Parts: sequence; C-alpha cells; structure tokens
Amino acid sequence: MSEARTTRAAIIVIGNEILSGKITDSNSGFLARELRRMGVSLERIVVVPDVIAVIAATVRAAADEFDLVFTSGGVGPTHDDLTIAGIADAFGCPVVQHPRLRAAIERVGGDNPGAAMLKMAEVPEGAELVGDEGDIFPTVRIRNVYVLPGVPEIFEAKVRALGERFRSAPYHLRQIYVSAYETAIAEHLDATLAAFPELLLGSYPKLSHPEYKVRLTLESKDESYLDRALSDLIARMPPGFIVKIER
Amino acid sequence: MSEARTTRAAIIVIGNEILSGKITDSNSGFLARELRRMGVSLERIVVVPDVIAVIAATVRAAADEFDLVFTSGGVGPTHDDLTIAGIADAFGCPVVQHPRLRAAIERVGGDNPGAAMLKMAEVPEGAELVGDEGDIFPTVRIRNVYVLPGVPEIFEAKVRALGERFRSAPYHLRQIYVSAYETAIAEHLDATLAAFPELLLGSYPKLSHPEYKVRLTLESKDESYLDRALSDLIARMPPGFIVKIER
Repeated sequence: MSEARTTRAAIIVIGNEILSGKITDSNSGFLARELRRMGVSLERIVVVPDVIAVIAATVRAAADEFDLVFTSGGVGPTHDDLTIAGIADAFGCPVVQHPRLRAAIERVGGDNPGAAMLKMAEVPEGAELVGDEGDIFPTVRIRNVYVLPGVPEIFEAKVRALGERFRSAPYHLRQIYVSAYETAIAEHLDATLAAFPELLLGSYPKLSHPEYKVRLTLESKDESYLDRALSDLIARMPPGFIVKIER
Repeated sequence: MSEARTTRAAIIVIGNEILSGKITDSNSGFLARELRRMGVSLERIVVVPDVIAVIAATVRAAADEFDLVFTSGGVGPTHDDLTIAGIADAFGCPVVQHPRLRAAIERVGGDNPGAAMLKMAEVPEGAELVGDEGDIFPTVRIRNVYVLPGVPEIFEAKVRALGERFRSAPYHLRQIYVSAYETAIAEHLDATLAAFPELLLGSYPKLSHPEYKVRLTLESKDESYLDRALSDLIARMPPGFIVKIER
C-alpha cells in the first residue's frame, strides 16, 4: 500500500469547567468528526485545567509530536482565560497585541477599550490570523497551533471558516453489523487483520439493540485495499452472523 | 486556609472510535461529575488511540503525577482491546489470568472457553479486584490505576459499585448570574481573586440566554472562606448586574 503521509492532529481543551463536570465538552467531538471527514488523523485529545504551566507543557509536547494542534477555550477577557499566555510560554515568545484584533475591538468598544476588552487582542508574538471570513473574528494561528474559543457556537463557526485547508486523502468506510457477540467473531477479525495489517478495524458492541450485537467499522485511505479486506472478512464470517453491510 | 491535601485524579479514555468521531465519549463527563461530588480534583482527561506504546506512556505518566487514574475502554475480547497490555507495559509487569475472573468466565462460557473469552480474564500481574457487588464484574485495580470498560452502561455501573471510596472533603459551590458581559466584570473578578487567592472562580458566558450573560461559579472546600469571598464579590458588583445568587 502506498499513500502520502497522513496528517496527524491533537486537540487540547482548556478549562476547569470541563474537568469539574460543570460543562460537557462538545467541541472536541465536533472537531474530531470534521477532521475525519477531511482525512486528518486525530490522535490525541487532552483536557487541561486553567493553569499556564500545564497549558504550556501540553501545547509544547503536542506541537512537537503532531502536525496540527487545535486548542479550545480559555481565550475570553477574564482571569481564567490563560490560553494565549500558555501558548506564548510554550514557544518562549512574549504576548503582544495584534493590530488587526485591536482595530476590531476598537470598532466595537470605542477608542479607549478597557483592559478586559484589550486582553482579547493579545496573541503570542509571531501569530497570524487565518480563516477570516464574513463577520466572525479570525482564528489565531502560531506555528502549527490553531487557537479556538470554548463557546461551542463560536468554536464551530470558526472551524467552518477554516474551511478545507487541512484536507488530505479521505478515509473510506465500510460497516458490518453482526448478530453474534464479540467473543464469537474475535478470531475472524484477527485473521483478516493478519492478512490486511494496514486495515483500520473497529469492533463496537451494542448492548440491547434489537437487530445487532456488534458494529464493525473497516477503514482505509486505499479504497481497493479496503474492499479486498471487506471481502476477506465477509468470507470468514459463519453463516447468519452478518445482519447488514454498509458500503 | 488549612485543609487536607486534595486528591488529584486523571482519566485516560482509550479508543480510536472517540478520536475518529464515531462515538461520543460520555464516560469522562460522568466520572468528572462523580469525582467532583466526592471532593476529588480531576486535573486531566486524555483520549488516546488503541496503541499499546501510547497507552503505556500515558498511563505511566498519569500514575506518577496523579493520586488516582481511571481508564475507560479497550477491555473487550477483540484485537483493538489493548488497555491491559498497555497498563502492564507501563508498569513493566506481565499479563496474567486472574483466577477469579477466569472462574467467572467459566461459569458463563463453560469449562473450555475460547481465547477471546479468556482475554477478558487477563490483568497486569499484581492487580486486585475491587468494587465487586451484586452481579456486575468487579473493577481491576493495579497500583493507583482503576480499569473501567468503554460501554457507558457498564462503565457507570462499575463507577457506582466503587462507591464512596474516593470521598474527601467536598467542594462547596455558590453561583452568581450576571446581566453584564464578561468584559464589564473582569476587573471585579480580579479584585476578589486578589483578596481570596484560594477561591476557585469560574466565569462562563452564555450566548443568547434571556436572563443572564455570564454565570460565575465560586468554589472552595472551606465554606467560611467561600462565603467571605462571595460577599466580597457581591459588594464589588455595580448595582443591577446581579440577576440571581445560588447558595
């Protein structure tokens, strides 16, 4: 199998409110689906508290290990919005005001906005603004890190405004629904994986579904390889096990 | 302020299905709320793929840094269930069959269960079984790591069966709902935090709510300290800003 190297991504969610269970993080799930759709391999999600040193260490490690890093949260005007400071710390650069963000704030808040308003013009030095379309604020990018807000409506709008810039070869998906338990099919999955080691094969038991007990997902960026693996697995399954196949 | 040291916890969610956006992780949110209720400080959630080396490195780092580590997922009978192998690797110990789990499987699957069934009797050497109550399987614990399954119904049942063993001094919570934007109250929050540096203070903007624009959460394990901080912040707020106070 030959293919271009897959783009690997991480999401860092910043916020005590997620860790204390006050707010459910929907941003990472939304972005996970968007990245998958674009053929990007999301390989880590980390939720960290509002602590500059923890944000900095997590961003630094992720920026080194992955091609793309997205942060969610911690970019408002209050004391617990520490993402910009943490990212600046990660890269050893100062926090500065971005002139375009400052100008945008002055359009809203007048010529003499308060310190809290101006905090939202701050970026790590060297950051650029991307995805600026229509009337939503652009996204701050520094190196391979994209800084997104925690409020889901704005997070999602900004992700959409970033568009298809991360698109690479798509994943192709096939699904098999099985009426047997995982223990009865595990050996067949192993045999197919031995023959098709590059196959991305998921096995997801479903409790108390009327029609099936396990959903199998087969994925690859190589569609012909995928369909050969699918045929291989179908052929191995005992009669009557397969409820439905989705291609 | 004097109090016993707070118990610090991490959750490691294991599964490609979360990272690819196929399945939404509800387990970490459920456990986050349970831990908070018990006075435990959850300080990290990490979602990792089904890769032994990544599971091992993540478990090792978390077990060193935090008092309690919970894993979610990757404990079934199929090829992508690699949590036990990863944890064993993290601690440099072999994977062995636990006699009580083996006996439980033989009660279900007969004297000669297949390899896939027996995989579910595997534990890292030195693990013990805890929280065994009623008819659900007990939870595997090794050192400070508790191994929980990915299927939410079973995850939640096992967390409940673990009971109150992690309980420490509770967090007390007060909430203030504010009709102004965050930028208008940021300086007051800063002033209260300067006077009450141990206060856990969260500021959560709500878009388009008819009654308030920001929800403030004030928390502490020291209720008297908390109520003094609450009074301080209320006194600083301009007239008309406060919509509602929840004690």
